[in-house]
Amino acid sequence: MEKLRRHIEEITTVTDEEFAYIQTFFTKKRVLKNQFLIHEGDEVKYEFLVLSGLYKVFFLDEQGKEFIIQFAKENWWMSDYQSFFQEKKAGVFIECIEAGEVLFSTLDTREKLSHEFHKMEHFFRVKLTNGYVALQQRIKLLLSNTPQERFEAFATSYPDLILKLPKKIIAEYLGVSRETLSRLYSK
Amino acid sequence: MEKLRRHIEEITTVTDEEFAYIQTFFTKKRVLKNQFLIHEGDEVKYEFLVLSGLYKVFFLDEQGKEFIIQFAKENWWMSDYQSFFQEKKAGVFIECIEAGEVLFSTLDTREKLSHEFHKMEHFFRVKLTNGYVALQQRIKLLLSNTPQERFEAFATSYPDLILKLPKKIIAEYLGVSRETLSRLYSK
Repeated sequence: MEKLRRHIEEITTVTDEEFAYIQTFFTKKRVLKNQFLIHEGDEVKYEFLVLSGLYKVFFLDEQGKEFIIQFAKENWWMSDYQSFFQEKKAGVFIECIEAGEVLFSTLDTREKLSHEFHKMEHFFRVKLTNGYVALQQRIKLLLSNTPQERFEAFATSYPDLILKLPKKIIAEYLGVSRETLSRLYSK
Repeated sequence: MEKLRRHIEEITTVTDEEFAYIQTFFTKKRVLKNQFLIHEGDEVKYEFLVLSGLYKVFFLDEQGKEFIIQFAKENWWMSDYQSFFQEKKAGVFIECIEAGEVLFSTLDTREKLSHEFHKMEHFFRVKLTNGYVALQQRIKLLLSNTPQERFEAFATSYPDLILKLPKKIIAEYLGVSRETLSRLYSK
């Protein structure tokens, strides 16, 4: 739980007593490669904070083609947030790409901690602000950019992921074909 | 300012005294058709709450092609949020499509009100949560859907806008050509 505390304290400070209480709402879980944390159609009860490992959030279109919405690594939060916040069935999958550990907690936890501690409401607001900005950037890239520009932006933002991930997965994230991606790598 | 109060009270209640204080941080402004609230390269000092009228948030690629990130109508917030939160120069334009009024306020206002009132931190967190979910939906649509599906999703979500907006503007929002959009209308 020390990682959770450090993660929270990047934004706000909590006392030992407060943290002792806060941590009771989070549960640790080991995740194996190819294990699913959320499956399309599930009730989405949890959000996850990544302690280690690598994960992908993706969905399938009607033809079964896969599209990756985001990756998640250490200190990133992930869920099917539309379903999580609106208490609907999952429209996405979350699958583990590289084994690790996560903390999970419920929407009640997020709301309860935000209600009881102004500083936790602040913590979640700041995390959402960062997430909102990141999504807006992704929309700009998806709307305007050529495959080449998308690839370069991804390589600049996530140099570690570009080395680590199979090309198939990167192609699904960028919304380009395998063939297009291979051409980009060879440039 | 009654609209601001009703907007806040959709999420949390404020006393007369609290609201008298909160409203001092917001300034009302009339906006004319084709007037720009933010211009690429500006310092982004303000965010805007729409009281009336219709606005578009867009950017230009290097060839001068226009891409619309979002529309904004009554009760929607708008800014170049990446630049607003990170205090960078604007990468987008905000232009008025249909004359109206907005309230504007600074990042200091958002932070100060959030700090002084737990309930205002809650208000902004809830607004961000809704915005985050909407952006994630837009990413899913942009990644996977055919022009036909994007058009139908837009028509379902914003039946008023589809009637009101020129086809050119809708095409720029959907990321499709004018010709493709005309085919979709004729179906």
